[in-house]
Amino acid sequence: MSSQPAGNQTSPGATEDYSYGSWYIDEPQGGEELQPEGEVPSCHTSIPPGLYHACLASLSILVLLLLAMLVRRRQLWPDCVRGRPGLPSPVDFLAGDRPRAVPAAVFMVLLSSLCLLLPDEDALPFLTLASAPSQDGKTEAPRGAWKILGLFYYAALYYPLAACATAGHTAAHLLGSTLSWAHLGVQVWQRAECPQVPKIYKYYSLLASLPLLLGLGFLSLWYPVQLVRSFSRRTGAGSKGLQSSYSEEYLRNLLCRKKLGSSYHTSKHGFLSWARVCLRHCIYTPQPGFHLPLKLVLSATLTGTAIYQVALLLLVGVVPTIQKVRAGVTTDVSYLLAGFGIVLSEDKQEVVELVKHHLWALEVCYISALVLSCLLTFLVLMRSLVTHRTNLRALHRGAALDLSPLHRSPHPSRQAIFCWMSFSAYQTAFICLGLLVQQIIFFLGTTALAFLVLMPVLHGRNLLLFRSLESSWPFWLTLALAVILQNMAAHWVFLETHDGHPQLTNRRVLYAATFLLFPLNVLVGAMVATWRVLLSALYNAIHLGQMDLSLLPPRAATLDPGYYTYRNFLKIEVSQSHPAMTAFCSLLLQAQSLLPRTMAAPQDSLRPGEEDEGMQLLQTKDSMAKGARPGASRGRARWGLAYTLLHNPTLQVFRKTALLGANGAQP
Amino acid sequence: MSSQPAGNQTSPGATEDYSYGSWYIDEPQGGEELQPEGEVPSCHTSIPPGLYHACLASLSILVLLLLAMLVRRRQLWPDCVRGRPGLPSPVDFLAGDRPRAVPAAVFMVLLSSLCLLLPDEDALPFLTLASAPSQDGKTEAPRGAWKILGLFYYAALYYPLAACATAGHTAAHLLGSTLSWAHLGVQVWQRAECPQVPKIYKYYSLLASLPLLLGLGFLSLWYPVQLVRSFSRRTGAGSKGLQSSYSEEYLRNLLCRKKLGSSYHTSKHGFLSWARVCLRHCIYTPQPGFHLPLKLVLSATLTGTAIYQVALLLLVGVVPTIQKVRAGVTTDVSYLLAGFGIVLSEDKQEVVELVKHHLWALEVCYISALVLSCLLTFLVLMRSLVTHRTNLRALHRGAALDLSPLHRSPHPSRQAIFCWMSFSAYQTAFICLGLLVQQIIFFLGTTALAFLVLMPVLHGRNLLLFRSLESSWPFWLTLALAVILQNMAAHWVFLETHDGHPQLTNRRVLYAATFLLFPLNVLVGAMVATWRVLLSALYNAIHLGQMDLSLLPPRAATLDPGYYTYRNFLKIEVSQSHPAMTAFCSLLLQAQSLLPRTMAAPQDSLRPGEEDEGMQLLQTKDSMAKGARPGASRGRARWGLAYTLLHNPTLQVFRKTALLGANGAQP
Repeated sequence: MSSQPAGNQTSPGATEDYSYGSWYIDEPQGGEELQPEGEVPSCHTSIPPGLYHACLASLSILVLLLLAMLVRRRQLWPDCVRGRPGLPSPVDFLAGDRPRAVPAAVFMVLLSSLCLLLPDEDALPFLTLASAPSQDGKTEAPRGAWKILGLFYYAALYYPLAACATAGHTAAHLLGSTLSWAHLGVQVWQRAECPQVPKIYKYYSLLASLPLLLGLGFLSLWYPVQLVRSFSRRTGAGSKGLQSSYSEEYLRNLLCRKKLGSSYHTSKHGFLSWARVCLRHCIYTPQPGFHLPLKLVLSATLTGTAIYQVALLLLVGVVPTIQKVRAGVTTDVSYLLAGFGIVLSEDKQEVVELVKHHLWALEVCYISALVLSCLLTFLVLMRSLVTHRTNLRALHRGAALDLSPLHRSPHPSRQAIFCWMSFSAYQTAFICLGLLVQQIIFFLGTTALAFLVLMPVLHGRNLLLFRSLESSWPFWLTLALAVILQNMAAHWVFLETHDGHPQLTNRRVLYAATFLLFPLNVLVGAMVATWRVLLSALYNAIHLGQMDLSLLPPRAATLDPGYYTYRNFLKIEVSQSHPAMTAFCSLLLQAQSLLPRTMAAPQDSLRPGEEDEGMQLLQTKDSMAKGARPGASRGRARWGLAYTLLHNPTLQVFRKTALLGANGAQP
Repeated sequence: MSSQPAGNQTSPGATEDYSYGSWYIDEPQGGEELQPEGEVPSCHTSIPPGLYHACLASLSILVLLLLAMLVRRRQLWPDCVRGRPGLPSPVDFLAGDRPRAVPAAVFMVLLSSLCLLLPDEDALPFLTLASAPSQDGKTEAPRGAWKILGLFYYAALYYPLAACATAGHTAAHLLGSTLSWAHLGVQVWQRAECPQVPKIYKYYSLLASLPLLLGLGFLSLWYPVQLVRSFSRRTGAGSKGLQSSYSEEYLRNLLCRKKLGSSYHTSKHGFLSWARVCLRHCIYTPQPGFHLPLKLVLSATLTGTAIYQVALLLLVGVVPTIQKVRAGVTTDVSYLLAGFGIVLSEDKQEVVELVKHHLWALEVCYISALVLSCLLTFLVLMRSLVTHRTNLRALHRGAALDLSPLHRSPHPSRQAIFCWMSFSAYQTAFICLGLLVQQIIFFLGTTALAFLVLMPVLHGRNLLLFRSLESSWPFWLTLALAVILQNMAAHWVFLETHDGHPQLTNRRVLYAATFLLFPLNVLVGAMVATWRVLLSALYNAIHLGQMDLSLLPPRAATLDPGYYTYRNFLKIEVSQSHPAMTAFCSLLLQAQSLLPRTMAAPQDSLRPGEEDEGMQLLQTKDSMAKGARPGASRGRARWGLAYTLLHNPTLQVFRKTALLGANGAQP
């Protein structure tokens, strides 16, 4: 790393140039970049990033092809007929039985790498050579286009990393391990070579890549562990146990909830039980018999990552600059202030001290506002997880969605699918914007509090607020008196108790007071109106990131795009992965797998572990139900069907039309 | 009116003063005020305002004393015992039988005179002499105090004007006439002498006093008309008819609503009936069997006056200034713009034309924003009147108030009374602040629209917005494509119809698309989040003036001060002037007045027309019910009681305890 001559001495041997161009003494001669102290020299890794990414991309494509072969070979091998090309799905969102930590880690890695795109000049690493940076910004448009292509690139780059987990095959785990180790290796190597980057803040890219390393580290452990497990188990049946265990757990919880009863004795300790209920209401604690759907788990992970990344960006984007300015304050700051007509003190040194103190206070306000915003956003996230659980449980029990009548049918629709696809992404964006808005509001609040109240009280200097209060004390005193007197009169003069019930009395005095105090109440009303504006702005800012709460009043609730997306998302989740339905299908599959070999496996039968396809079983292909099952299992299936429909009335809609559809009669 | 030498020629004979003090040529010599053209000379009426107000105040005090005597004499005369001093009530808010136009006019006059306080230097007219205006603002605090006293003064000044109507006596109408004519005379005389006032805008005080003159004009007609009527009728029974007619109309409507049935045939003309329902839902049209309570009528009148006054202030405060600036634009504006680095054109004349055009556009934006704000505020007022009617009808039928459990009891409480007292004042203040906030938001919106979109399109100049769009077109195109493609895929690829029901299909492709499009959806989510912020800010700004709608979501609705005040106001209105209750009491009073002379009039009996006191009849003093009524009327009273309680369950609470209380047993 070539070290630049600090300060502005002209390098020896440069010809003296008295043209006006070099009139500004600070201008570096000969255009070489001047390196003020503490500034980070731009760092170049030994192996260009383009090369890294070229290797990783090709490795990923290779893994993807192998996975595709693997998925197709596995379907081909058992009955050697089906030729459908097997696109390996990256995350089985609606199938509840897949491991949830892997998609969460992959999404965390994906979001972090998108955030790392911000400081990067070249969005697509291996395309830096193709577009030489031109002066007049002519190629400005393509750089924007490259950045958008960069979004696709990173999603495609991490696609196979996620797909290896859903394939659920030993070979897939092996591929997953190699891929995750490769990614981790590249990232660690890059960070080790260039820990500091000149953009934004020297350690920004290192700190921002922590979630990335965390995610890749987890995957690099998880895949080998699965590999070892699959060798020891040799059943290759993937993680069949998890799903049926959840749906059975759901059924067990549903059927014997009465016996469990509520073990919390509420009456005895009033405050304790209230606190416990409140805590349970605000903080999400897992409860037996209920698993959050995968997409909500992903949204929670993404929200946590987004909070970390935005907070980091806000912190390193501003605080180091304030610190640098505070360090660089010299006595000529007093001239600067005098220019604005501000004379803090005669003694220049004291002016410097004061300016440094004010900048320090500004820094403290900024950081406390950031901490408050993050805390509130985190609390709001916890609370909305509880609301998700309440909503899902209600919907599982057949409650209606309070959407507009147009969208109330339980069947999936175009809007519902689009909302379902974009739910997690919207949640991430809402959290980022919510955190930004809260940071601005809280920073303004804390700064006003510090500079108008705390600092004047501590230092007895610029008593702006107190002087304006001093001149307008009659106004505030009158308003306070008006409110207090009216309340006292309302309590002692206009209210009397008859037979245990408060009654209105002295009506004439009440009417006279109402008339005479009307002008004063208008002024009090102005204060209340201002408080109403501040309160609703603050409340909306805090809940901006929450999609399960409409920021508009009930009658216009679905106009709120966030709430509308959330409601449609719930509709798809409930209609496509209803735990009772999944439990029912896995019962049928288990019943079907107990059948003797000859009777079983008609052409399109399903293997255990493919419950989500199993759900078509109920709605469409009734062929299997008619011919192939003996009396006993048909009885059990009918009982299961009756019991499930009894507890989930919304499913009846499927039941009737499916049968009618099968007999060809019009519903 | 002495005309000042225009322009800045120094007046002849003034000694040449070369001290630095007069270095600024424009400074007027000798401190006399320089009168630029078009500026209004300060106008002094022949009779000083102080004298006017001194006369009016004394006249008002006189009228008030006479009324007090009148009210006491009327109570004294019939049985010559009761000595209670009779404070004449200005407005019988809770008694539904009083004329409603008078209090509405008085409140309109009061609010307009408060608005006229704004430009006035001396808040209390006849105290101008007492506090000579000092330079250093030392007496600044007292002037603030005078302004607050001014609020009380005007309320007290118009107190007797309102009280004359409630006394309901010929003499009171006479006093009312003289007082209203006096007020009207003074106002008209002042406006005639000084139509133009230098403050804010020359015609401001004339325009702002229009509602004042309107109200006083109405009173000056109403009182004489009542005077003539009472002579012709000679019954002096006040307007007994109005109240019992309303409660009877309410009962008639309540009892035979089925027969009326809904005469609107909904099915046939789809759009027409929808439009009619929508109109009925948004615009308040009086319906038989329902009268808005007096306080809501007052709030509506005050809201109308407040909209007029604020719109006037916003209009005359800004538009004349812009017009003056536009008229005063000269060629040296181009130097001013050059100072900011803006060079509109080489030709100076064209620069002047352009600047004038831009100022004209600014004026149009400001006025259109003001019209839009007033229209929306008016519509919101109409809509909230409909909501008031719906809420009141529901409460009359015994619906529960969705207040926090703490405040759900139907009995009046301290908070409820305080909220009831300040409801109209708060509503006025909310409307003013709401109009101001809307004006700011719509002005910013229209200006951005005009200067960034319309003007560039028309003149092809400063295409700021279009150039930024041009450079970032890939970004917007990608987002639009992403949304459109996802919707099309959701419709044609992921959705297939089985037996008439849409089903999810191609799940793997759906999962892959969701994963790959995640980064793009985050950007789309950012746009949606921004739209969510703008939508909720706009919605809250438009509904800021509406108190019957909480700006906070349902679970925190009562935290909203406006909504909390409204709910408590309704509680008092329903519990104190329930039409069924009033009808019931007037039935009892009529039954009691039909009794032969000897049997009637025990000590504290009530005269017809005092129904609001009559309500105590039911709750507390049962003495009359026990002894004095023959069998037939007791039967009818019991029927009435049963029927009323049947249709208004909330009244049962009174019924049971009142009887228990009478027998001394604990409820």
